[in-house]
Amino acid sequence: MNTFSSKLIEEAVNEFSRLPGIGRRTALRLVLFLLKRPAAEVEKFSETFTRLRKNVKYCTECHNISEEEICGICSDGRRDNTQICVVEDIRDVIAIENTSQYRGVYHVLGGVISPVDGIGPGDLNVESLVRKVSLNGVKEIIMALGATMEGDTTIFYLYKKLKDFDVHISAIARGVSVGDDLEYADEITLGRSIVNRIPYENPLQNMKS
Amino acid sequence: MNTFSSKLIEEAVNEFSRLPGIGRRTALRLVLFLLKRPAAEVEKFSETFTRLRKNVKYCTECHNISEEEICGICSDGRRDNTQICVVEDIRDVIAIENTSQYRGVYHVLGGVISPVDGIGPGDLNVESLVRKVSLNGVKEIIMALGATMEGDTTIFYLYKKLKDFDVHISAIARGVSVGDDLEYADEITLGRSIVNRIPYENPLQNMKS
Repeated sequence: MNTFSSKLIEEAVNEFSRLPGIGRRTALRLVLFLLKRPAAEVEKFSETFTRLRKNVKYCTECHNISEEEICGICSDGRRDNTQICVVEDIRDVIAIENTSQYRGVYHVLGGVISPVDGIGPGDLNVESLVRKVSLNGVKEIIMALGATMEGDTTIFYLYKKLKDFDVHISAIARGVSVGDDLEYADEITLGRSIVNRIPYENPLQNMKS
Repeated sequence: MNTFSSKLIEEAVNEFSRLPGIGRRTALRLVLFLLKRPAAEVEKFSETFTRLRKNVKYCTECHNISEEEICGICSDGRRDNTQICVVEDIRDVIAIENTSQYRGVYHVLGGVISPVDGIGPGDLNVESLVRKVSLNGVKEIIMALGATMEGDTTIFYLYKKLKDFDVHISAIARGVSVGDDLEYADEITLGRSIVNRIPYENPLQNMKS
């Protein structure tokens, strides 16, 4: 994979393989695919990303990506803006929206605290969350971060920042995935799912439909 | 994965997921990655592909991608230009070059015959191969196409086109991969490897070092 007959190819392969999860072999396949497409199509392909990067806006309320100053979720009067779900990035907003189980609003952190990757609290949208909680009548903050070391660290950091305000802080349940057999769940997940067991009388107590 | 909060995101996801092997979930991951990069870097990313598509040249001899009129392999005086290795695309040239086992030149077909995909002989660089064989002192054509129905069809088509010329036609060996156990080889590969067995006295007879 070292000898390309063209510097243009080499550069294009380099650009693609800079993307996460794309190795040089895949990158070359993508480059050859683009070469076979009409020039206008490739032009449109390229232009889309420049335009995206230049014109993308972030909601001034929740930092979600948005067409307007305020995103569609924050500006939706039917959503409960006393309930804020804290997520890592826009993918989590899409994932939670797709469950149709949540009617509050979001706060996109833009990452999680990860010393290994050099990401500290200052790189995340923390101050605006604290400000929102201190000003508005926010009743509940739901921490919906990944069940990782970094996610847990970030939750703990935010907890310390928010605990003195009059706000209920919760975290999404960790447990055995729906449809999974117990024997395949890892010990920590299974352990947590026992510790955080919920009364069977009303298993939907934390859900809105 | 249906609700994006931004049309720009939606468009960018669409562009990425048009690439082979990239689904909408991966596409969104790539888009979010680009959004976090500096604008200049994204500009460079985009610009690379437009420039590639506009400026790429193909070797007039072998149809390999090239910086010049004639590619580095065809113009290399130390290569044996009486021996032509017929391949599907530039990836195969790279793969064979990396073996360091071949010192002849190449002919890049630009695909294989595939009625399902609407690719006929007219879409491939066949005429220029026939012309080369009819004019030059070409001694051997080595068919190095994939061991697929399409590859075999293409080889048979080329064989019919070339058999009346004074040229030796060969095909790369199909057989059990080096390092593989016999029990894991499929029956057809194993069968071919028996039919095409080579004398043990000189197992390297078809290789150049």
